[in-house]
Amino acid sequence: MEHFPAPLENLVEQFARLPGIGGKSAQRLAFYVLGLPLEDARAFADAILDAKRSVTCCPVCRNFTAGGLCPICASPKRDHSTICVVADPRDVAAIERSREYNGLYHVLHGVISPMNHIGPDDLDIKSLIERVAAGGISEVIMATNPDTEGEATAMYLARLLKPFDVRITRLAYGIPVGGHLEFADDATLMRALEGRRDI
Amino acid sequence: MEHFPAPLENLVEQFARLPGIGGKSAQRLAFYVLGLPLEDARAFADAILDAKRSVTCCPVCRNFTAGGLCPICASPKRDHSTICVVADPRDVAAIERSREYNGLYHVLHGVISPMNHIGPDDLDIKSLIERVAAGGISEVIMATNPDTEGEATAMYLARLLKPFDVRITRLAYGIPVGGHLEFADDATLMRALEGRRDI
Repeated sequence: MEHFPAPLENLVEQFARLPGIGGKSAQRLAFYVLGLPLEDARAFADAILDAKRSVTCCPVCRNFTAGGLCPICASPKRDHSTICVVADPRDVAAIERSREYNGLYHVLHGVISPMNHIGPDDLDIKSLIERVAAGGISEVIMATNPDTEGEATAMYLARLLKPFDVRITRLAYGIPVGGHLEFADDATLMRALEGRRDI
Repeated sequence: MEHFPAPLENLVEQFARLPGIGGKSAQRLAFYVLGLPLEDARAFADAILDAKRSVTCCPVCRNFTAGGLCPICASPKRDHSTICVVADPRDVAAIERSREYNGLYHVLHGVISPMNHIGPDDLDIKSLIERVAAGGISEVIMATNPDTEGEATAMYLARLLKPFDVRITRLAYGIPVGGHLEFADDATLMRALEGRRDI
C-alpha cells in the first residue's frame, strides 16, 4: 500500500494520529504542508516545538502559561478570594470571553471518568484543596460541564471542600440565550423551571 | 481575545491555516499536540521538516519521490511505452492500488483552471511533451478527473500531443462498481449508455 515516498507516508501517519483526522484528511493535510514554501513549513514545525517547550502549567491555577505564574493569577486587579474550577484551559478562555468573571481559576485538566480510567488522582485536585486550605478563599464556583462526568466531578470536589469555610456554588442551568424553547431537552427545561427568577 | 499563552496561540493559528481546519478544530489539535509526550511532538515536527527536505519531484514523471528517479520510472518491470497523465500524486496512488496498470505516469500537479488563474504554464506540461517527443511512447492515457477542468485539461493535452505518433485515450466513464443506478446523475448515465459493451 506504500505508494508515497517514506517521508511523505510518515507525515501522513503523523497527521492521522491527531484526533478527528481520518486517513483522507491526513493525506490532504500532508500534501498541503508539502506544497507550502519551506519557511512556512518550518514555521509550523517550530510552532509545535515552541509550544511544547515554552508552555507550562501555572503553579497556582494549573492553567497554561508561557512560564511562571499565569497572567490571571499574577494580576492584582483580579479578585483573589474566588476560584472558578474548570476542566480544561479552553473553558478558562470561554469564561474570559464573557468578561463577566473577575476571580481566579483552577484547571483540573480533565474530569473524573471511571469509564476512561481517570480517577481523582489523575486530575489537579490536590493543588485545589491546598489553595483552599491555605485560606483567603471565600467562594469556589464549580464550572465543569453540565454532563454526567462534569456533574460527578463537581459533587466530588464539593464534598472534599466541605470542611473548609467557603461557599461552594455551581453554574446556573437553563435555556441558552438565543436558544429556542422547543429545541431544549427535558432535563434543561426542568432545570430552567427550577431555577426560575422574579423579573 | 488572547487568552492562551502566545506560543499556544501561535500553534492554534498554524493549524487554522490548514485547509478544512476551522477555529475550533485548530484549538482541539493544538491542545492535543501540547498534551503529547515531548518525543511525540518532536516526531511530528521532524516529520514536517523531513518531508519538506527529502521529498522531491521525479525528474521524469514529476511524481513525488524521496530523491532521484521515482521507483516507478526506475523499474524495468513497468511498461515504459505507456504514460498515464494525472493531476495529482494522490491519483497515482489510487491507480496503483487498483493493480491494473503497469505503465508509467506523468503528474501535472494541477489542472488548467482559468477561475483560479492556473494556466498551462503553471503545470508540468512541457516535460510531458518532451517525454513524448523523445519517442518510445505508444500510448498516453488521460486520467484527469471527469469534471469540467479535468476534461478541458485532457482535451488541451490531446491537442498538443496530436502531432506525435501516439494513441491518446481517456479513462472510461460509467456507473461506479457497486453504485446504484438510481443514484447516478444524468450525465454519468448518458456516458454509461454511450460506452455500453457487448457481454
